[in-house]
Amino acid sequence: MSLPVENTRIVLASRPVGEPQSSDFRVETVPVPVPGDGELLLETLYLSLDPYMRGRMSDAESYADPVPLDAVMVGGTVCRVVDSRSPGFAAGDVVLSFSGWQTHSLADARHVRKLDPAAAPVQTALGVLGMPGFTAYAGLLQIGKPKAGETVVVAAATGPVGSAVGQIAKIKGARAVGIAGGPDKVAYLRELGFDEAIDHRAADFAEQLTAACPSGVDVYFENVGGKVWDAVLPLLNTYARVPVCGLVSQYNATAAPEGPDRSSALMGRILTKSLTVRGFIQAEFVRDQYTHFIADMSEWIRDGRVRYREDIVDGLANAPSAFVGLLAGKNFGKLLVKVAE
Amino acid sequence: MSLPVENTRIVLASRPVGEPQSSDFRVETVPVPVPGDGELLLETLYLSLDPYMRGRMSDAESYADPVPLDAVMVGGTVCRVVDSRSPGFAAGDVVLSFSGWQTHSLADARHVRKLDPAAAPVQTALGVLGMPGFTAYAGLLQIGKPKAGETVVVAAATGPVGSAVGQIAKIKGARAVGIAGGPDKVAYLRELGFDEAIDHRAADFAEQLTAACPSGVDVYFENVGGKVWDAVLPLLNTYARVPVCGLVSQYNATAAPEGPDRSSALMGRILTKSLTVRGFIQAEFVRDQYTHFIADMSEWIRDGRVRYREDIVDGLANAPSAFVGLLAGKNFGKLLVKVAE
Repeated sequence: MSLPVENTRIVLASRPVGEPQSSDFRVETVPVPVPGDGELLLETLYLSLDPYMRGRMSDAESYADPVPLDAVMVGGTVCRVVDSRSPGFAAGDVVLSFSGWQTHSLADARHVRKLDPAAAPVQTALGVLGMPGFTAYAGLLQIGKPKAGETVVVAAATGPVGSAVGQIAKIKGARAVGIAGGPDKVAYLRELGFDEAIDHRAADFAEQLTAACPSGVDVYFENVGGKVWDAVLPLLNTYARVPVCGLVSQYNATAAPEGPDRSSALMGRILTKSLTVRGFIQAEFVRDQYTHFIADMSEWIRDGRVRYREDIVDGLANAPSAFVGLLAGKNFGKLLVKVAE
Repeated sequence: MSLPVENTRIVLASRPVGEPQSSDFRVETVPVPVPGDGELLLETLYLSLDPYMRGRMSDAESYADPVPLDAVMVGGTVCRVVDSRSPGFAAGDVVLSFSGWQTHSLADARHVRKLDPAAAPVQTALGVLGMPGFTAYAGLLQIGKPKAGETVVVAAATGPVGSAVGQIAKIKGARAVGIAGGPDKVAYLRELGFDEAIDHRAADFAEQLTAACPSGVDVYFENVGGKVWDAVLPLLNTYARVPVCGLVSQYNATAAPEGPDRSSALMGRILTKSLTVRGFIQAEFVRDQYTHFIADMSEWIRDGRVRYREDIVDGLANAPSAFVGLLAGKNFGKLLVKVAE
């Protein structure tokens, strides 16, 4: 088998202001690098697109450093080993890596995880059995701590995080209320077993949400912010928990919204309702929870108690437009770019 | 001994808009009631004035019902038993009650706690050994969870809650940074052993606070809100904890401040720094922590590791003006009204 000679990659050409534009990215073709001792040459099969990437495009202070200009955009990937200089791997192995928006890459063999294609479709390592699924599992169970009979609300509920949150909430005996955009997504939530499914595009969205939560809200898994948060906040019960893993609706914002300044009112609500509002990144919980997650989630998928949906875009060149669509809620399920067969 | 015949009481005449006015209160004289079986007739010695009372004057939704119009203002009190119809109490006993802004009251004997004047000055049951001290103890240790070497910041730091927070933080091996208004209070914080003491009235307050926290802030015990919170928020470290027990600077606010709306930015900070922001009322922790509190705090006071300061106003008639001063930070130490000798 002849080795590939060209790596096609997408680099960050400029920092987006507001919604990313195609001019913020640049496609480049460079020679495929040669692996050294302990390294693997990888061919990307699937690239995961996730909302956190918007933060990496910006140089605002965050939990991770921004992607430098002219560097390859970061991202989780499922790859095939093309050439191995590590005794633990052979050509043809499929691995989970973090090689970003490119067709080929080198990886330190210690930094990839071998996947078993017989155990689960390999791309699930980027979704329900990967970072998004773990974000749902750790955030809901370690911070949200839903009890049987409590009400759990989650938005972006057909996405890989939200759909897992709702289904795990059901497994724990809670009521799951899902929020999504448009009738198809709402119908899918009902299929997944959410007790209530609400369209955030409805003019009377806040009223519908209130009606769907007659006993208030005990856990709000926050991944979108904006008008959903505005509608949930008045419904939160005393001692409600709010794990905050994302604020997708805000990621393209270029300035704080007009006033009045509601930040003191938010603190007041936290006080009078004894709320717990807790930001988190899943990495915090990997050491203690990841093994439990893989065991539990694999079983739940086998049992049909957790289902998942993928939205697969073909071709690396479509990654930028697919990513812009992701921030606008245009994907339906876990968004993946199929980079190679 | 002849029984008293007149009860002087202060009722809520109208709901304050902004800062309470003397016209919001009315002094009344009514006959002293006669205790029934199981009841005690109490004479108030000390009335505690605390910021939460502002919330009870308002009919905005909160964790407790508002005081009805024309009803006696609520409040913690230390009282002498004048007449007992309960076998557990005798005239002359001193008890902790919640009889509010009045000179005499009836209490169900099951709802008062007998105090031992030999163990500690009885009025400490309203301060360092009472609700404010317990608010500090439970909020700091159960939510703030300071570790040795971490930095704990608290405002209103010469008050009964703040001074206990700082001194308990020191006992746990943390650095204590206290914020107060004016040079006398700042000097007192240094006397108490705070590592840093900062005057929030200084023009360069935020810069001074930043300089006082070279390793950032791990625990911010929130009891004031406003500009102190604005200055602390950028300093919070990843995984910082923010127990929220009060927002005194906001209690007289009549409308949300002008924009921009910083509430999304606040949520963004909670996300990117993995912050825990947790509102609480001390009552939540009474069952599990109160016994530990009394044991620990009594020992710390005996050892001189926790000191306290009282600001005693003479005469029930001065309660309204003293309360208005409390919200403006005019008291220096735990504010008490001495109602009788």
